[in-house]
Amino acid sequence: MKILMIWYILGQVLRLEGILILVSCIISVIYWETQGVVYLLVGLGTVGVGHLLCRNKPENTVFYLKEGCVATAICWIVMSFIGSLPFYFTGEIPSFTDALFETISGFTTTGASILSDVEVLSHTAIFWRSFTHWIGGMGVLVFVLAVIPMSGGSNINLLRAESTGPSVGKLVPKMRHTARWLYLIYIGLTIIEFLLLLLGKMPWFDAITITFGTTGTGGFGIKNDSMGSYSAYCQWVVAIFLILCGINFNMYYLLLYRKFKQAFSMEEVRNYLLIILAATGIIFLDIVRTCNGAFEALTHAIFQVASIITTAGFSTVDFDQWAQTSKFVLVLLMFIGACAGSTGGGVKVSRITIMFKNMLRELKMYIHPKSIQKIKFEGRVVEESILHSVSVYLITFVLLFTLSMFLICLEGRDLLTSFTAVAATLNNIGPGLAMVGPTQNFGFMTGFSKWVLMFDMLAGRLELFPMLILFHPRIWKDARRKHYVEKIHS
Amino acid sequence: MKILMIWYILGQVLRLEGILILVSCIISVIYWETQGVVYLLVGLGTVGVGHLLCRNKPENTVFYLKEGCVATAICWIVMSFIGSLPFYFTGEIPSFTDALFETISGFTTTGASILSDVEVLSHTAIFWRSFTHWIGGMGVLVFVLAVIPMSGGSNINLLRAESTGPSVGKLVPKMRHTARWLYLIYIGLTIIEFLLLLLGKMPWFDAITITFGTTGTGGFGIKNDSMGSYSAYCQWVVAIFLILCGINFNMYYLLLYRKFKQAFSMEEVRNYLLIILAATGIIFLDIVRTCNGAFEALTHAIFQVASIITTAGFSTVDFDQWAQTSKFVLVLLMFIGACAGSTGGGVKVSRITIMFKNMLRELKMYIHPKSIQKIKFEGRVVEESILHSVSVYLITFVLLFTLSMFLICLEGRDLLTSFTAVAATLNNIGPGLAMVGPTQNFGFMTGFSKWVLMFDMLAGRLELFPMLILFHPRIWKDARRKHYVEKIHS
Repeated sequence: MKILMIWYILGQVLRLEGILILVSCIISVIYWETQGVVYLLVGLGTVGVGHLLCRNKPENTVFYLKEGCVATAICWIVMSFIGSLPFYFTGEIPSFTDALFETISGFTTTGASILSDVEVLSHTAIFWRSFTHWIGGMGVLVFVLAVIPMSGGSNINLLRAESTGPSVGKLVPKMRHTARWLYLIYIGLTIIEFLLLLLGKMPWFDAITITFGTTGTGGFGIKNDSMGSYSAYCQWVVAIFLILCGINFNMYYLLLYRKFKQAFSMEEVRNYLLIILAATGIIFLDIVRTCNGAFEALTHAIFQVASIITTAGFSTVDFDQWAQTSKFVLVLLMFIGACAGSTGGGVKVSRITIMFKNMLRELKMYIHPKSIQKIKFEGRVVEESILHSVSVYLITFVLLFTLSMFLICLEGRDLLTSFTAVAATLNNIGPGLAMVGPTQNFGFMTGFSKWVLMFDMLAGRLELFPMLILFHPRIWKDARRKHYVEKIHS
Repeated sequence: MKILMIWYILGQVLRLEGILILVSCIISVIYWETQGVVYLLVGLGTVGVGHLLCRNKPENTVFYLKEGCVATAICWIVMSFIGSLPFYFTGEIPSFTDALFETISGFTTTGASILSDVEVLSHTAIFWRSFTHWIGGMGVLVFVLAVIPMSGGSNINLLRAESTGPSVGKLVPKMRHTARWLYLIYIGLTIIEFLLLLLGKMPWFDAITITFGTTGTGGFGIKNDSMGSYSAYCQWVVAIFLILCGINFNMYYLLLYRKFKQAFSMEEVRNYLLIILAATGIIFLDIVRTCNGAFEALTHAIFQVASIITTAGFSTVDFDQWAQTSKFVLVLLMFIGACAGSTGGGVKVSRITIMFKNMLRELKMYIHPKSIQKIKFEGRVVEESILHSVSVYLITFVLLFTLSMFLICLEGRDLLTSFTAVAATLNNIGPGLAMVGPTQNFGFMTGFSKWVLMFDMLAGRLELFPMLILFHPRIWKDARRKHYVEKIHS
């Protein structure tokens, strides 16, 4: 285990995080809020610590998958810890567990909150809370990769651990360029949405925080009714941008390079849009009688579908009050999730597609046992190793889900609350149903349950294995030994 | 598709079923019930039709997997159809859908009932209802195989479709002998349990019907409170025999041949017993305060665990009233199911074990990407093809579960009812929670939902693919063509 290398990466991440915390101070100045002092101190401290950690860059920067995973997991944990300090030190979230829950929920773009009243927070806190969504959406390591040079082949191991989906496609041969392109597209989408919301007469502070929640597919609302009190225009803008941010970012890259045919023939994106269409249709038919007119029903339907499938978790209405079919469709969308290579969470449409094809192949094998059937996805044959890893992902997901649910059940809440609480955190959605529904929050839970859900949020965001690997005794044994060897050699 | 061969097998199955229906007439004679006439006529008619169908035995009896699956699925559907006729014609279950539901629930050893009052049924009906459990538990085709000679290698394809678990182990080189051994062990267990229940002063009629429900792991109660009103002794006998019938029957075979070491080192059986122990422990601790003393709590805990993990579905108490942790543990057991090669349903302990090991291997691969890790189960290396089929099974299970739940949700019941209704039928348990809990029944559901659940029961019993394959258009295209060719040649 290359401990020095992990320290170095962590240093880079902390330096970046410190700067981002300092950005929040601008809001303190604008609204003249004293909390800004805490943000300033924490920000400066973090930059300092980060600077110390990455002072001596290791010569050998080769990085294996194992180290990529461990580094990513550690970075996310430390980053969340630091990010929660401003909430805690300003006293706006007096319990440390709660502050950490809120921060992890932010960085992992979950959007599950422990706050029963968001509107009493200072502007600085609301800004930082929404900003964490934006930072976590694309991933901090992706950003670090865009900035620091590393030995060939190593970067992919970091990107693999942080990116979403079954396999990382390199957009361009050089990893650094891929990372830069991803961020440029991301920033572009953010600016356009912000401007469109301003056009809809939304106050600039609301527009910026909601944009962060949308493009990062996070879903922290800044009002107690989430998006309910905004105009239909704003709701549509947010819905459309949610859908856009749930699309595989490769598509935008192809579009920018005028490869229209390739871009529009992306199978995952097509399936993703078809699922949205079907789900919206079903929910529309299910709720249209209870709404004031078809337009309102359509707005609620598309908003909720977009918000849940992209795993953001905004709401315009208390969908916990909807009929069972609609609720079930939403629960289903929680698990499906967005496209790979997007800022969304969940199992991902590409995995679902591959699983479905795998099942169909098995059926065909019953009919023609001797024929060799290959599974194609996005026009290419899917390697057996990818098929295998998709299956193992599902198995691991189910096992982790079950274990988490068991631990949450110890609290004694009803099964629907426990089930959707785990579903909403492991898939990085935010709200669930019943006691954790869109008008409720996670504040009532015991500290133990909150820690379980925090783990689930991180595991969901990093696609399970980087977090699970931390529990493997071998990792720590290796770490101790290698660290010793490295020290002797230096 | 070898249509003639399928007709022949179906004929054999019907002839057997007719005889078994006639057995029920003995009960009519004993209790002097007029319903016996209907059973007599249906039984004779079925024997007649069966006889006609298997009059001309095809010369070529080679059978492929595809035909094995289709034959099995068709046999089970037709058999259920015929089996429901007595209920319908006697008017004891006036709706045909309900009669079919009850029969499928019987043959698939599910034990889900549409009857709100079981005790008003005639003895003949109660006997036939419980008898279907016993018949379906080991499988009719297994019995047919034990009786009729077929070409080498073909039988395994029938057995594969009807047996439970990821792979069929041949006990002895000849398939017919395997089938005979299975039935001998099955009959042995049945007789011992019957005698033990008689010893506990249970009336002989109760003892025989409950024994059928136990050894077939079916779970149809013959009283409205299922097993609640019997003595603790009887409850323990049933619990122990449920656990015994959930064990892989290969173990008994090994025991009979005095291969004790091999028998007691079976990994699946060990895991199965460990799960039972752990689940009983958790539930015991969870309910002990609400029971009258530790012994009562232990009896309820072990009975319920045994009843659910073996997918029988008897109950001694309304576990829907238990605390959330216990309820969740029971829901979990519903999915785990019993051992492969037993009469129980569910996903099976062997599949869960293999999946778990597959996940651990993936974690190890992150740490040592280049090492080749093999998964061992029962002391042997698991082939990749088995791993693959286990994964595909899980994927298919999840997809079918989701689709069924969506269809059930259209009825508008709460999500817990819909979820456990599907879980209880697809895993062949019987009762679920909430509106389909142990003191409730499935009678209130719409006809549409009942048909969905009937499909799920059959799919669960035959382990998904034999039922799903019927929906593949290719099967029917092949069938038409081949039938035509066969007719010309004959």
